[in-house]
Amino acid sequence: MSVQDSYLSKVNWSADGLVPVIAQDMHTNEVLMVAWMNREALKRTVELGEVVYWSRSRKKLWHKGEESGHIQKVHEIRLDCDEDVLLIKIEQIGGISCHTGRHDCFFQKLVDHEWQITEPVLKDPAEIYKK
Amino acid sequence: MSVQDSYLSKVNWSADGLVPVIAQDMHTNEVLMVAWMNREALKRTVELGEVVYWSRSRKKLWHKGEESGHIQKVHEIRLDCDEDVLLIKIEQIGGISCHTGRHDCFFQKLVDHEWQITEPVLKDPAEIYKK
Repeated sequence: MSVQDSYLSKVNWSADGLVPVIAQDMHTNEVLMVAWMNREALKRTVELGEVVYWSRSRKKLWHKGEESGHIQKVHEIRLDCDEDVLLIKIEQIGGISCHTGRHDCFFQKLVDHEWQITEPVLKDPAEIYKK
Repeated sequence: MSVQDSYLSKVNWSADGLVPVIAQDMHTNEVLMVAWMNREALKRTVELGEVVYWSRSRKKLWHKGEESGHIQKVHEIRLDCDEDVLLIKIEQIGGISCHTGRHDCFFQKLVDHEWQITEPVLKDPAEIYKK
């Protein structure tokens, strides 16, 4: 490991080698989504200047936007006090973060003990992932 | 389980019965901290209108601010597309969310491959937790 990579060792990776990552809109501070990174994903994110997650379902690196074009440009990377959560301020290309075609993933709001959908689908997922 | 509690079953609790929870400032949208809830913690949070987490280290319900006075008043509760992350918009009483005495927990910023502390300690933790 080079000196350049020592920041990776500061992160308190879980037993599975992962940490949760919050993607936040750099302009509005809205929380867009939460996904996961392993050591390699964070390294690639820093090198590339675009967010690369670890897909737990597909068990591989996931360069966000690689299919959809909805790239996340890195503005700032932060680590919390326990060093086990990352917060990344990003510019969301295309204005869609969620795989459902919505602006962000937190579109269900608790109202009178029921979850209500409060955000529209901006683009049909079948259109987004047709490639 | 009453009908009133059916919203709890919509949440995709982990094998450990937990989900991560993001606390976000309702006024500025700043991300203040991330902690965990189990079913009972979310139920209590909804009933009380103040955030109650599950402390993984102490293995008990943790009414945020019970010692420090830094209560988190609930403004809005949201659930993500996979139903395994909660986002709660809050009013942070006392303006301090972090146990280090800082405004929020994300005070370490990656600059030139090093984590730099970018936020001051507003109150000595020894003062906060002296009760």
